[in-house]
Amino acid sequence: MKSSRLEAFSDGVLAIIITIMVLELHGPEGPHLQNLWDKAGLSLFTYLLSFVYVGIYWSNHHHLFQVVPHVDGLVLWANLHLLFWLSLYPFTTSWMDEERLARTPTIIFGVNLIGAAIAYWLLVGTIRRLPTSGHFDEVFGADWKGRLSIVFYAVGIGLCFIKPWLGVLPYVAVALMWLIPDRRVERWLQQRDEMPVV
Amino acid sequence: MKSSRLEAFSDGVLAIIITIMVLELHGPEGPHLQNLWDKAGLSLFTYLLSFVYVGIYWSNHHHLFQVVPHVDGLVLWANLHLLFWLSLYPFTTSWMDEERLARTPTIIFGVNLIGAAIAYWLLVGTIRRLPTSGHFDEVFGADWKGRLSIVFYAVGIGLCFIKPWLGVLPYVAVALMWLIPDRRVERWLQQRDEMPVV
Amino acid sequence: MKSSRLEAFSDGVLAIIITIMVLELHGPEGPHLQNLWDKAGLSLFTYLLSFVYVGIYWSNHHHLFQVVPHVDGLVLWANLHLLFWLSLYPFTTSWMDEERLARTPTIIFGVNLIGAAIAYWLLVGTIRRLPTSGHFDEVFGADWKGRLSIVFYAVGIGLCFIKPWLGVLPYVAVALMWLIPDRRVERWLQQRDEMPVV
Amino acid sequence: MKSSRLEAFSDGVLAIIITIMVLELHGPEGPHLQNLWDKAGLSLFTYLLSFVYVGIYWSNHHHLFQVVPHVDGLVLWANLHLLFWLSLYPFTTSWMDEERLARTPTIIFGVNLIGAAIAYWLLVGTIRRLPTSGHFDEVFGADWKGRLSIVFYAVGIGLCFIKPWLGVLPYVAVALMWLIPDRRVERWLQQRDEMPVV
Repeated sequence: MKSSRLEAFSDGVLAIIITIMVLELHGPEGPHLQNLWDKAGLSLFTYLLSFVYVGIYWSNHHHLFQVVPHVDGLVLWANLHLLFWLSLYPFTTSWMDEERLARTPTIIFGVNLIGAAIAYWLLVGTIRRLPTSGHFDEVFGADWKGRLSIVFYAVGIGLCFIKPWLGVLPYVAVALMWLIPDRRVERWLQQRDEMPVV
Repeated sequence: MKSSRLEAFSDGVLAIIITIMVLELHGPEGPHLQNLWDKAGLSLFTYLLSFVYVGIYWSNHHHLFQVVPHVDGLVLWANLHLLFWLSLYPFTTSWMDEERLARTPTIIFGVNLIGAAIAYWLLVGTIRRLPTSGHFDEVFGADWKGRLSIVFYAVGIGLCFIKPWLGVLPYVAVALMWLIPDRRVERWLQQRDEMPVV
Repeated sequence: MKSSRLEAFSDGVLAIIITIMVLELHGPEGPHLQNLWDKAGLSLFTYLLSFVYVGIYWSNHHHLFQVVPHVDGLVLWANLHLLFWLSLYPFTTSWMDEERLARTPTIIFGVNLIGAAIAYWLLVGTIRRLPTSGHFDEVFGADWKGRLSIVFYAVGIGLCFIKPWLGVLPYVAVALMWLIPDRRVERWLQQRDEMPVV
Repeated sequence: MKSSRLEAFSDGVLAIIITIMVLELHGPEGPHLQNLWDKAGLSLFTYLLSFVYVGIYWSNHHHLFQVVPHVDGLVLWANLHLLFWLSLYPFTTSWMDEERLARTPTIIFGVNLIGAAIAYWLLVGTIRRLPTSGHFDEVFGADWKGRLSIVFYAVGIGLCFIKPWLGVLPYVAVALMWLIPDRRVERWLQQRDEMPVV
């Protein structure tokens, strides 16, 4: 099976996930700025956060499949497994938002984030074992960012038991880690181990 | 008409079906884990089940059209007929879930599953009669899995009359049949009759 | 601008329109077959009807752009104009369905159908004037079906003033006209004036 | 990274944004034309307006990426930034509509419009700095329309403080500016500075 079809289908699913989250943003109940802030202030923040996560996965996902031209059935299902976890983002984001960062929903959101991160790690594993993935290791290196993300998510879940909003900080840190630093160390990383820039 | 366009459109519809089902997952009504379990425990299970079904159809659908480069009007409508049955999955899944596996909704879900399976079988028939489907029979063989699925769905519907949750077992069995065994007998099947792996 | 991109975008929009209509199908309020029939019987019929319409437009739309390799800005906006009318189908279908085929909603549904038919006719006009549309006339001929559809929709709207369900008959007739006869006269039409089969 | 993939993903997101807005159009509460007018008259107008905006962005976005064959990580994120602002259109459109053009929602809608316009302007900037964007300046010229749009949006927001419906006029003017004049001056502009026609 050509990886291009798998990419096209995944792109479709990711485009829908990233967009339908806005359907969970219910309009403010009143014509005043205060209504927007009360109802949608937190919603907009969590929407932005999940939007960035899905954007990161889309970007990484695309880099992943540029190295391998063909995939087998196991990669296909590992990919659907990842899409399943990502498809739950609108659901867990919405719960965390409606309960205004209460403890359990914020933990469950972290579990969803970890689930997707592990699914991604499994997907990388299934690709690595393909005979056609020759340049894979040298291109992607040790993927320390992927592993560090899982650690950060776990720390976030732990901090939720103290104060839920404390747990959100590591979640945000992961998003920033994928977004910002790659920007700065772009050239350096590309020269060192040819890791593709997110 | 090139089959690639039909595939692209079908991919779009399947990507949307697989994703909008998450919109039917209403957030729990409260900040506790118990609320999640009460409200969304069953939802998550039925969502996962339907997600796997659509994933299986996407995978099979793709294999189907790799053999034939061109299609005619009859194939096009047989394909839309299949998409129609699949597009009802969110609707029947949601009803079965909201009535917590009551008898009638669980039967209707099974009817939807059978409808899609028959529509798929008809689609295969319309492709088989195309002049360009030369290698079709040798590639797909007797499609015993497709026929067995219809039997399992029918058994599931029958068992619903005893206990609805009993009927769900064969439904799950079909999903597992397409998911797991192909994993193990992959090499054997490919050598024997070159059946593409799901 | 290459017509292939316009097709891809239109395919995306049509795939979404055809699928989100199922979100308007609210689950029955109760676990009995009667609940399904009361609540969703009519919904399923109107959903099927609109599903077929969008399927027809997708099929025709695709044939249309196979003849012309490039399009200009006017074609692009004529195409968006058509997509706008089609995107209202879920809205007007839902109203007609919720008011159980009351007079005004059924008329408005017919107006929507006519609006899309006229938008399609305008789109054909903008394509016809392109310098690259050399074979257009001989391929599509006089498009009597497109014009007949508008007449049927108008008759349907007229009949709604007597009995709304009477008006639905011509609406259904148009769907059947595009679906069934082409099946039968496929070979004859192709030989006579090379009109592509829906 | 090939720009064609970025285009395909953006097309998917834009197709979804343009279509899900119709889900915010709740059906009228009653079977009479008056119900449609009361409930959906304004909705249909704001839906049409946002539909045109997204259509304009899709058209411009496509022209933008025809000039550059490859993009880097910064362009990718500038593009996601634009998609984020556009994905809020259904949300702000719906609020403005439900509060029937009250002052604050209409201003917030304008802020959303300006946000998207600035995001587009930033995206153009990130493309302009690419080494592969050789013909960019001569193709797109000074982009006076992009800058004029931002001014019009700002004027609209200002007029909202007097009367909200006054503010809507410049919003509509921007849509018309992109839609109509290019139609008329098409040939003249193409000869002068080869600016692609919207």
